[in-house]
Amino acid sequence: MGKLKLYCGLLGLLLLASCQQPPADTAAKTQAVTASHQAIEWRLATSWPKNLAGLGMAPERLAQLVEQMSNGRLVIQVYGAGELMPALSVFDGVSKGTVQMGHSAAHYWKGKAPASQFFSSIPFGLNAQQMNAWLHHGGGIELWQEVYQPFGILPLAGGNTGMQMGGWFNKPIMSPADLKGLKMRLPGIGSKVLKKLGGVPVDELAGRELYSALQTGAIDAAEWVGPYNDLPLGLHQVAKYYYYPGWHEPGSSMEFLVNQQAFSALPADLQAIVKVAARAINQDMLDDYTQGHIAAMDTLISEHNVQVTPFPPEVIAALKQARDEVLTEEAAKDPMFNKVLQAYLANEAAVKRYFHYTEDALN
Amino acid sequence: MGKLKLYCGLLGLLLLASCQQPPADTAAKTQAVTASHQAIEWRLATSWPKNLAGLGMAPERLAQLVEQMSNGRLVIQVYGAGELMPALSVFDGVSKGTVQMGHSAAHYWKGKAPASQFFSSIPFGLNAQQMNAWLHHGGGIELWQEVYQPFGILPLAGGNTGMQMGGWFNKPIMSPADLKGLKMRLPGIGSKVLKKLGGVPVDELAGRELYSALQTGAIDAAEWVGPYNDLPLGLHQVAKYYYYPGWHEPGSSMEFLVNQQAFSALPADLQAIVKVAARAINQDMLDDYTQGHIAAMDTLISEHNVQVTPFPPEVIAALKQARDEVLTEEAAKDPMFNKVLQAYLANEAAVKRYFHYTEDALN
Repeated sequence: MGKLKLYCGLLGLLLLASCQQPPADTAAKTQAVTASHQAIEWRLATSWPKNLAGLGMAPERLAQLVEQMSNGRLVIQVYGAGELMPALSVFDGVSKGTVQMGHSAAHYWKGKAPASQFFSSIPFGLNAQQMNAWLHHGGGIELWQEVYQPFGILPLAGGNTGMQMGGWFNKPIMSPADLKGLKMRLPGIGSKVLKKLGGVPVDELAGRELYSALQTGAIDAAEWVGPYNDLPLGLHQVAKYYYYPGWHEPGSSMEFLVNQQAFSALPADLQAIVKVAARAINQDMLDDYTQGHIAAMDTLISEHNVQVTPFPPEVIAALKQARDEVLTEEAAKDPMFNKVLQAYLANEAAVKRYFHYTEDALN
Repeated sequence: MGKLKLYCGLLGLLLLASCQQPPADTAAKTQAVTASHQAIEWRLATSWPKNLAGLGMAPERLAQLVEQMSNGRLVIQVYGAGELMPALSVFDGVSKGTVQMGHSAAHYWKGKAPASQFFSSIPFGLNAQQMNAWLHHGGGIELWQEVYQPFGILPLAGGNTGMQMGGWFNKPIMSPADLKGLKMRLPGIGSKVLKKLGGVPVDELAGRELYSALQTGAIDAAEWVGPYNDLPLGLHQVAKYYYYPGWHEPGSSMEFLVNQQAFSALPADLQAIVKVAARAINQDMLDDYTQGHIAAMDTLISEHNVQVTPFPPEVIAALKQARDEVLTEEAAKDPMFNKVLQAYLANEAAVKRYFHYTEDALN
């Protein structure tokens, strides 16, 4: 209390003193004094290289918005993958409070909480618009909070890549039989779907490792994100076919992870600033990806003569059936997975009924 | 300067005085004092009934976020249509500074600035995701600012209804010939498209007037928004067919209008708070509409036995051709319309090329 009294008294004296000078903008000065007095510093660890297009830009933009809106009272320092901790240690880092925030993708934590996978993307599931609607007005975010609550983490939607591409292939996929033995980089539920059809999913490869893995034939195929991120990796130089659509990730949501204790310690206005900034960035990343994808796709086709090839309908049908089986199997193993699955499937069916009359009817 | 000095001195004294009491939470008190001292009050006029689902909720939510994030330093009072000014006077009200903000739809201002219509929705044009991407990462918002700059208004995207429905009809539409003489409530560019095919668009009817206009036969058809807003109006009780898709408005953007002078007078942190809150609400409205539409559509079909009917392909083709003609004609009349049209069409073509490989390929 003594310290607070002293601060407060000093602040008062400072303000009185500043009035003795001819003030160009007294209100601004008042704020500046308040700001330096109350500055809180947070660290945010990401699972991406710093400033990677799309994924890597979102946390930087969040930090910028928070600093502007809080007038410097909350400053978030962003660290890329490996700077403070490995890419896949972000969840633990936020849980333990090593960092106050993280930016990552929920399916990475399937080992800790299988239900986390619903908050990235489900094969043949919700697209970006449907996902955001379910999260924010359909009960999704409340389930996500329930899944992360035991870890002391508050999840916030942290952007979306939009619908992804089917990936880069060095073997043509003419029928479901061609998936047998296919070594493909593919994460999350999608990898289990591929496995069910006889494929060999490779889960652990990072984006920068894909080029050489395809080049050396260590893998036959790889999906990363979509043109915006795939073009800079040069995957078109080491793969023959660019398949579509991205059945495995129809709208991949990213996440901001917030240490619950650090969040609760913030005053209410800074809590609101963090949440609203995340909400704005959640949309901004999708906007960035949409424009980035369309430009990069045009470049891939017109400058690099990439062959963009559709999966045959019978392959799509087989993958879809396998997805339903995988989801049922996973639900039997984990009650929370089953709880989220039931909510997700009910919403998926309802929104697809509506999109039948709207988006799907006006291509 | 004298007044500022006095304020500043008083603030200093207040802070000193507050330190004499045993402070439960001095930091919070400091903020509260600062807040009451600096409170700025804005008025926001909308073109909707207060608290109308979707459209009417967005400005209330914006005001709430701004108040929370600014800790009460910026308070926005929301007025529904007719409370301070008629629904269609919002643009003038913001331009003149009668109110600091407005919430409306840009196509209403086609008489003042024909190019404003690109920032609502263009028939067969961008859907919500594509529109947000174009606005925020494709140069769209800069063009919008250029269109409103002569009026002293800063535009911000203010939500989206998602793709709308084709409307409520009492005459079946079997071929383009059935559009001849059709009296239909339809705004914006869509109304010109209908007129070109021999229809009689009625532009001025507000939502609450549609029920009796359909019931009395004053009009043959009406589009409003989509199930979320259409169901409460009871339009299914006075129309036989619910047509789809909403070719005329594939993703209607709303707008926050900000008086440029009032905005410039805000300190930088409050400017950021207004902009970021608008960005968050822009997504929140779409999320709200998506979930609202799907629930209301299920109710219309399962409880009210509504016949949801597709426009025949030849009707869609005729409407699309008419749209191209209308856009070309309008561009010849107004250089700014033409400038925005060229940018819009280039983006529309590029994003549709990409969606062909993604969203459109995985329905």
